Amino acid sequence: MDRTEPNPFAAYGRAVPYRTNGASAAARYGAVAVLVRSLTFRLDDFPHTGLMIYDEKIPRIPAAAIATNQAEQLSQWLKEDPQLRLNLKMSCKQLSPVTSANVLGQLTGEEKPEEIILLGAHLDSWDLSPGANDDAAGCAVAIEALRLIKEAGWKPKRTIRAVLFMDEEFGGTGGRFYATSASRKSENHLLAIEQDNGGGPPVGLALRRGDKIIEKTEKLEEILNPYGINWIRPGGGGVDIGPLIQQGTVAGNVVPATQRYFDFHHSALDQLSAVHPREIELQAIVLAIVSYYFSQEGI
Amino acid sequence: MDRTEPNPFAAYGRAVPYRTNGASAAARYGAVAVLVRSLTFRLDDFPHTGLMIYDEKIPRIPAAAIATNQAEQLSQWLKEDPQLRLNLKMSCKQLSPVTSANVLGQLTGEEKPEEIILLGAHLDSWDLSPGANDDAAGCAVAIEALRLIKEAGWKPKRTIRAVLFMDEEFGGTGGRFYATSASRKSENHLLAIEQDNGGGPPVGLALRRGDKIIEKTEKLEEILNPYGINWIRPGGGGVDIGPLIQQGTVAGNVVPATQRYFDFHHSALDQLSAVHPREIELQAIVLAIVSYYFSQEGI
Repeated sequence: MDRTEPNPFAAYGRAVPYRTNGASAAARYGAVAVLVRSLTFRLDDFPHTGLMIYDEKIPRIPAAAIATNQAEQLSQWLKEDPQLRLNLKMSCKQLSPVTSANVLGQLTGEEKPEEIILLGAHLDSWDLSPGANDDAAGCAVAIEALRLIKEAGWKPKRTIRAVLFMDEEFGGTGGRFYATSASRKSENHLLAIEQDNGGGPPVGLALRRGDKIIEKTEKLEEILNPYGINWIRPGGGGVDIGPLIQQGTVAGNVVPATQRYFDFHHSALDQLSAVHPREIELQAIVLAIVSYYFSQEGI
Repeated sequence: MDRTEPNPFAAYGRAVPYRTNGASAAARYGAVAVLVRSLTFRLDDFPHTGLMIYDEKIPRIPAAAIATNQAEQLSQWLKEDPQLRLNLKMSCKQLSPVTSANVLGQLTGEEKPEEIILLGAHLDSWDLSPGANDDAAGCAVAIEALRLIKEAGWKPKRTIRAVLFMDEEFGGTGGRFYATSASRKSENHLLAIEQDNGGGPPVGLALRRGDKIIEKTEKLEEILNPYGINWIRPGGGGVDIGPLIQQGTVAGNVVPATQRYFDFHHSALDQLSAVHPREIELQAIVLAIVSYYFSQEGI
């Protein structure tokens, strides 16, 4: 990842095709296996994994993630000995899919229960860690936002629903199932917020209807400012809520600071200690206010 | 510190008088010593220390900082036994002052060398740790900002000076000496920026002349936005640059996110690992741009 890029997600976005498509790209030139340098700014000893896709027209070759320290070491060895041979032993295999489930919980709207404000995050994570930032933090703030609204005694006019999606990481089946299942047909999803950028402190609120800004948010911006929200701008979206957005639902995201996110991302380092209680608490407070605001005002 | 206060420095400000003046306030009611509960949001085993002042009209009694976990334990014991006696052994003493020094480094202005843009931070810290966030981070970004400007080959019209002040923590003598020393008389300090809120990621830029906003900063705001700056608002100042501000210098501060700051503040926990390289790097980049901008444009 390019360390001179100030925006970590932009640097990730430019590097991620090498992980996703690198194996087939290398196989096209005769590679027998690929080692993918981990996507993180740091030099560490932990492989950072993630989705990769084989091009069905090219023979499948083994692909493994290598930590940045070990990638540096390997580069050094290759400079010293261009004939270096590497022996790769891998025990992983792809098993058949199993059935799992999205998890839903909600405060039912008192006036328009069929109109939904959705707070989304995903339950699954890469298997090297509990996925504290990706995406246990998002699940925690969605649940906590509902709890805060309940504890405050607020009575939403429209339904506020937390949806903890299954399978964001491996293809997004949970999000697609949710958007197209029969039980959703009688419902109208006004707004879908997805928290999937880690547990960092909130800095802004992204909202969009298609490519357009949501108007009349001045009052909301003022209410949110003490909790770290500096702006409301067009944006928002995510793998899980993508299918809803395509159906016309307004997209949202409470945008956190993310300079630390890729230190942990998809590695054994994404532990509970990598999330700060006050930072995720602020995300939950902002989410509670935003969801309650639109449950009363509509959108 | 009040955990329901979203702004950590506001919570600190409301709690700090108990540490600063608690001993004399208690002595007035006959206390023989005070234990001050540490100023942090967290429950930990580390005393967080800081400045305290005796009222000269009241007898001086011993005062010690106690960690939040031990304060909780002590409260529990006191509930169980209101006659509990506590034996306090302290070996600390106040030695005579010694002479130390502020440390200055600068890029001399090519057109108006006597007009100064000052980047300030303080060298001293509480003795329990190296003071990574308070204020080694500030010193690092002031030095790094100068290095970045030099490396970029930028030639400032006015002088950009890093000042690492001595004795911010114990009375601010370094800042007062700097502002009143004979060698400053021929100089005109246009802007003084102090970085003393930890190494967190920058979120805004505070600037003020007296209580007024600095105008014509729209272009600067646009330049700084990719580095995390969401706004330019009135604000800025600090112990070290206070005396300069009183003389009419414009105050500035690159405002960082601070939810983690009091986890470490004035305790053995304020180690290098408590600062994130990309977050302080962003502070340095913002500082380099702001100081160069005003070295060219004046203020």
